[in-house]
Amino acid sequence: MASAPGPHRTIKVPKGARDFLPEQMAVRQRVFDVVTRVFERHGAVTIDTPVFELKETLLGQYGEESKLIYDLADQGGELLSLRYDLTVPFARFLATYKITNLKRYQLGRVYRRDQPAISRGRFREFYQCDLDIAGDYPCMVADAEALRVLIEVLDEFAGLSEHHRRRLGSYQIKLSHRQLLDAVLSLCGVPADKLRSVCSSIDKLDKEPWEAVRREMIEVKQLAPQTAERIGEYVTRSDAPWALLEALRADTALCCGRYGAEAALDEMQRLFEFLEAMGGALSRCVFCLSLARGLDYYTGLIFEAVLTDGNTPLGSVGAGGRYDKLVEDFCGRRVPCVGASLGIERIFSLVEEAEREWAAARNRPIRASKTRVLVAGIGRVNLTERMRLCDELWRAQIPAEFVYAPKPKMPRQLQYALETGIPLLAILGEDELAQNRVALKRLSTQQQVTVERGAAFLQQVREWLAAEEDEQGREDTSASGENGTAPGGPAKAAAAPPTPQ
Amino acid sequence: MASAPGPHRTIKVPKGARDFLPEQMAVRQRVFDVVTRVFERHGAVTIDTPVFELKETLLGQYGEESKLIYDLADQGGELLSLRYDLTVPFARFLATYKITNLKRYQLGRVYRRDQPAISRGRFREFYQCDLDIAGDYPCMVADAEALRVLIEVLDEFAGLSEHHRRRLGSYQIKLSHRQLLDAVLSLCGVPADKLRSVCSSIDKLDKEPWEAVRREMIEVKQLAPQTAERIGEYVTRSDAPWALLEALRADTALCCGRYGAEAALDEMQRLFEFLEAMGGALSRCVFCLSLARGLDYYTGLIFEAVLTDGNTPLGSVGAGGRYDKLVEDFCGRRVPCVGASLGIERIFSLVEEAEREWAAARNRPIRASKTRVLVAGIGRVNLTERMRLCDELWRAQIPAEFVYAPKPKMPRQLQYALETGIPLLAILGEDELAQNRVALKRLSTQQQVTVERGAAFLQQVREWLAAEEDEQGREDTSASGENGTAPGGPAKAAAAPPTPQ
Repeated sequence: MASAPGPHRTIKVPKGARDFLPEQMAVRQRVFDVVTRVFERHGAVTIDTPVFELKETLLGQYGEESKLIYDLADQGGELLSLRYDLTVPFARFLATYKITNLKRYQLGRVYRRDQPAISRGRFREFYQCDLDIAGDYPCMVADAEALRVLIEVLDEFAGLSEHHRRRLGSYQIKLSHRQLLDAVLSLCGVPADKLRSVCSSIDKLDKEPWEAVRREMIEVKQLAPQTAERIGEYVTRSDAPWALLEALRADTALCCGRYGAEAALDEMQRLFEFLEAMGGALSRCVFCLSLARGLDYYTGLIFEAVLTDGNTPLGSVGAGGRYDKLVEDFCGRRVPCVGASLGIERIFSLVEEAEREWAAARNRPIRASKTRVLVAGIGRVNLTERMRLCDELWRAQIPAEFVYAPKPKMPRQLQYALETGIPLLAILGEDELAQNRVALKRLSTQQQVTVERGAAFLQQVREWLAAEEDEQGREDTSASGENGTAPGGPAKAAAAPPTPQ
Repeated sequence: MASAPGPHRTIKVPKGARDFLPEQMAVRQRVFDVVTRVFERHGAVTIDTPVFELKETLLGQYGEESKLIYDLADQGGELLSLRYDLTVPFARFLATYKITNLKRYQLGRVYRRDQPAISRGRFREFYQCDLDIAGDYPCMVADAEALRVLIEVLDEFAGLSEHHRRRLGSYQIKLSHRQLLDAVLSLCGVPADKLRSVCSSIDKLDKEPWEAVRREMIEVKQLAPQTAERIGEYVTRSDAPWALLEALRADTALCCGRYGAEAALDEMQRLFEFLEAMGGALSRCVFCLSLARGLDYYTGLIFEAVLTDGNTPLGSVGAGGRYDKLVEDFCGRRVPCVGASLGIERIFSLVEEAEREWAAARNRPIRASKTRVLVAGIGRVNLTERMRLCDELWRAQIPAEFVYAPKPKMPRQLQYALETGIPLLAILGEDELAQNRVALKRLSTQQQVTVERGAAFLQQVREWLAAEEDEQGREDTSASGENGTAPGGPAKAAAAPPTPQ
């Protein structure tokens, strides 16, 4: 045996990674269901790519973040790295199959050798949920739909219950444009070869004050102090979309025909029009020049969804933008793309909190198991008899269990059902066995009937299970306001997202 | 920009890994749905663990297979390896949270630096779908349920249609027992310290003839030729469960009280009784001494599901066994476990073949997108008007799309709907816009009505979509025999698995 006696193995989870317990997985699955439902409502299809790519595929795509990439050991053969996001692998995928049009979503794990900040939901292994639209389409149409999807997902979570709304209902979508930012930086005197690097500094404005960013620009990025000052005047500006658009159009220094700001502002105007047509999605947005996004590959619109408490930002729950050159970089063919990525780990934490509160308010566990019937035995009924009845339920597609003891006492079986939330008990005693009958008990109402085995038994089980579901549905709806839907209720029953006005 | 002009990047997928296109993902998702449904029907809950573990956690658990483990590069910090299976991480998980009872399932990717054999479904990155039952339970109860689950999953796939049954309907479950095998090997003269190593040789009997295995035993494992001969007499034996059990019980050399064979045979007898109680699951099984399983951690029952064509084995679609010491090895506490792992990649290939055949027979594409309505414009209706109508559908939870062109021609929009299988067209012309109406067209029947926007429109959409689903359901059922269910039909509508008699 390989398992040597003596000192035991280390049982540590790798730093920055984590396990998920069954109750967490139940919540996580519901989060993924909501996201998938919204993505599919927009006609998106899903794909999958390996967790690792050739090291060369990822190299030089992430600017200053490249140092966070995990490499695999060189054990002979190809040099591989774990994927850092789903965007570069998506671009590689489009290049591989020569695909020019695709609206795809993908839920998958990505890896970053970052300093973990568990409390802020930052891990080394985490999920991303992305929607990307590839194709050469009229200006800003796909961009508007990607933003609408992001808003729809967030509203869907907020609509689940009052507990969810309190945590996820208040957010803003910050909008900006790489070409506009480049125009601003050029106007302020940043040389072309420092544009991306200065963007990385601006990107820190959501975590650091302007003063710190200004210092980095001067000391690390070697900008002249007056250049940094002029940048500061622009990147601290943030306003309602139409208002800032008008103000920037009136800025004759910026819109003098030299920096390309006009084209970027035309694009923003078109985006705002589309977002208004898409159910008033624009009312969720602010136009915000401090948004820069750290990654190198963006070429046009950039955006970020930020939870807010009044005017205080509480952290990002989604981001994205347009990257028109990434696929071309792989294969030489131009395939413009725009995409949105959800900050799903943070959303998951907030939904988990909401569901725990919701469950506690009802004094009910978060159920991980789907078991509907516990087959219980009394007296001298043996294991094989309980197995036989369980088999009848399994065949009828009804989730069922039996306790794995030879002759368990009734109180123990009852307790198991109560603790794990199993609603029905199918009880076999010697009398029932002799008469080919089953005693069926509904725990929530304490009803009990004895029915013939076979069709009559299964019909009674189905009837009571349907009644249990109705009951649960009513309770959930009444508890979460008129627009609310039950967490844990069937996905298809979700209410329409509230109008984002 | 990071994307340098000039020679393009390599767009190769890493060796032994692969991408999944949207149509493949649609099939894959259905396969996972079937598996998950069966696992949950048995009350199993799911967990998740990281894709990598500390190198130390995996070390020495896999016998001769350890050389196939992927290590991460040493970039400072902990030494990590990609998981080789889901079993050792599960044992580590139980140890971490001091869990003593858990029926858990897990669908996840695992990694092996093996020589890929794509045609035989062997990859370096692949999914495993495992059900494991941890807990100190009466002998063979959990083992029987794990086997029943394996049988139920395979029968569920075979029951999907005639195309599926032809590929997956004919299989055998081979059963054996590590302690019985050890007893046999000890009787034949194998020293205790060579038991595991000789098991690895026997494990090759499904791919190599006895002669090759015999040679390896003598030349590589240094067994005496007469020991190898005696082993050959046992490990070529395979028979109906009760028949071989009786024969081995009558073997006085083996059952002489010295090798522990009697206890293993008692366990097998109990297992057979339970499997008979669980819907005749035993009729799917053979008792087979050539089954050894390569991994070191098994301690009792071992099994493997093999597709067969008559008596010709076609490859494994699932395997598992009892491992009572793995958790103890991590934490010193005894937590006996038994588990079954599906050969899901092979199952996926076979289901994909079946569904392609099924789709081709109906001259219908495998649908990846869930879009139900295409919002089409005619004449001078602009993009924002189509967006507005799409928004109404999205709000009503109805998957909808519009073509991303400013003023697309009607034939182009119609063609898009037909190619991607969208059943309804909602058409906006200038007249409709002026009258606040929509022309709705059902492509399968060529019906068309003009209705008022708002509630009347949504009701007509829902009515026709329900009719489409009924239609599809009828066609699928009639095409796949009376027990069959539609691939792509709603998961909950699956028929009961056929009685495995």
